[in-house]
Amino acid sequence: MPKLITLQNIKESRERISPYIHNTPVMTSQSLNRESGCSIFFKCENFQRTGSFKIRGAMNRVMQLSDADKKKGVVTSSSGNHGAALSYACNTFKIPLTVIMPENSSLYKVENVKRYGGMVQFCEPNQEARDRDTARFIEEKGAVLIHPFNDENIIAGQGTVTLEFLEAVPKLDVMITPLSGGGLMSGILSAVKQRQKDIKIFGAEPREADDAYRSLKSGSIQSNHSTNTICDGLRAQLGSLTFPIIQKFADGIILCSEEEIVHAMQVIWQRCKIIVEPSSAITLSALTQKKSSFAGKNVGIILSGGNVDL
Amino acid sequence: MPKLITLQNIKESRERISPYIHNTPVMTSQSLNRESGCSIFFKCENFQRTGSFKIRGAMNRVMQLSDADKKKGVVTSSSGNHGAALSYACNTFKIPLTVIMPENSSLYKVENVKRYGGMVQFCEPNQEARDRDTARFIEEKGAVLIHPFNDENIIAGQGTVTLEFLEAVPKLDVMITPLSGGGLMSGILSAVKQRQKDIKIFGAEPREADDAYRSLKSGSIQSNHSTNTICDGLRAQLGSLTFPIIQKFADGIILCSEEEIVHAMQVIWQRCKIIVEPSSAITLSALTQKKSSFAGKNVGIILSGGNVDL
Repeated sequence: MPKLITLQNIKESRERISPYIHNTPVMTSQSLNRESGCSIFFKCENFQRTGSFKIRGAMNRVMQLSDADKKKGVVTSSSGNHGAALSYACNTFKIPLTVIMPENSSLYKVENVKRYGGMVQFCEPNQEARDRDTARFIEEKGAVLIHPFNDENIIAGQGTVTLEFLEAVPKLDVMITPLSGGGLMSGILSAVKQRQKDIKIFGAEPREADDAYRSLKSGSIQSNHSTNTICDGLRAQLGSLTFPIIQKFADGIILCSEEEIVHAMQVIWQRCKIIVEPSSAITLSALTQKKSSFAGKNVGIILSGGNVDL
Repeated sequence: MPKLITLQNIKESRERISPYIHNTPVMTSQSLNRESGCSIFFKCENFQRTGSFKIRGAMNRVMQLSDADKKKGVVTSSSGNHGAALSYACNTFKIPLTVIMPENSSLYKVENVKRYGGMVQFCEPNQEARDRDTARFIEEKGAVLIHPFNDENIIAGQGTVTLEFLEAVPKLDVMITPLSGGGLMSGILSAVKQRQKDIKIFGAEPREADDAYRSLKSGSIQSNHSTNTICDGLRAQLGSLTFPIIQKFADGIILCSEEEIVHAMQVIWQRCKIIVEPSSAITLSALTQKKSSFAGKNVGIILSGGNVDL
């Protein structure tokens, strides 16, 4: 039996992190509702601290470090939204953080980590070097590795978005969330399936990085054949904790082409006047593809982040 | 003595239009506060119906047309945010609207008018042809011209944004608003100077279209020498109703260079994750220039619109 995070854990996590995060607004658009034939509710995690939902899990994890671990400091090799969120969370509690990043990382990502006080250690731009340098850092400094999604406290933290969302919009029929390593989706599934079971949960995944879709089809975790997608936040593959939850409880995975994702992003920017990253906009593209099956329904969409290098 | 719009008129206008518009949210950003040394409150009219504050004045004006005038229909030659707003307002009450637009107008502007049902009549792309065709249209069809700003009911409508803003943030010390024809600023001045006189009101104007700055200096309405600015909403010149109000009550006009405006727009997009047009972002650029004089103050900024052709 796959292990859902308990609703109690998610509620306690919410209590723990809520002084440090925003209860983000829910937006609607009359014209998008008209065009899609359903009522769309956008949960705007692009307005979240550090620009994405990742602060929820990072904060929840960091706050539960032991005093000894806090002294040792934290390390991660994930340099996107998780890296920035972890930087903010560690800085809040004066815990040293090092992010191992490829030396060809964009200045934008480096700045997002440094803005909140995280240190950056560059490595050669390949996965092997990154893993090796991270392992060496842990060995030498005794630092604690915080994984971006395959971690119970991270998943519980991400799940807190669901509680806020359902308080703001109690009568959702469907929720669509971006799907990458599965931390966010596992958190949402854990909260929803123990609270309002009848809400259907769909993951939106780029066709160009479709490991989750193939993993569910085959029954075991599959690697990505390519990660050639504009969704730079959706290139990870499912983990040992997230796969079984998604396998058992998800109501489906909707694959989206690059073209559809870019179009959805333009629509959101233009019509809702908000900046979302491609990894968020994919949810609207998934809705558009399946709009006949969502007709007349209340559809909750997680706009997971707004960090785009303009 | 210049004639302020009465507070009573602005309150009644608010009552009249509020079923048809949004009470837009006020946003803040910790990091921008830190960097600017003051507390900034962004009134997000970019989230307003039709994407700008212009719907306030347009709706207020249209709702007060006589039945006879409603039958005659409405015409305007202003094709930007006023055109789109007027289109929405007329459509709401099934009043025919024609917008006279230069035949080289961007598809984006044409669509913004047509989306809400307004008709477009193209003219040669020069001011003379536009004025001539508008006059001919009025003569032939008996249509009512609705001016974008030099109109009491328009000014009263724009002023309603102040009442919402001061309810949300009662203790503002300063307000900065974009300045073009002066409808918005006259509305704000009318409301503030009869309600919370001690709030200082500044207009932000592009250096490349600095008619208001020069008008105040010389004591009479001046034309723009150029309108070579990225702020396509700020190319008009003050009118006979707006000039005296601004001359008497404004606390200053801050001129901004094109470079500063573009930079401010990037900052708002990147940090606040919202889309604002250059004509809105100019307010942050004005604040940045004068930040020493706003230190420690509560500064209200009107983000007037979000209609950008991406």
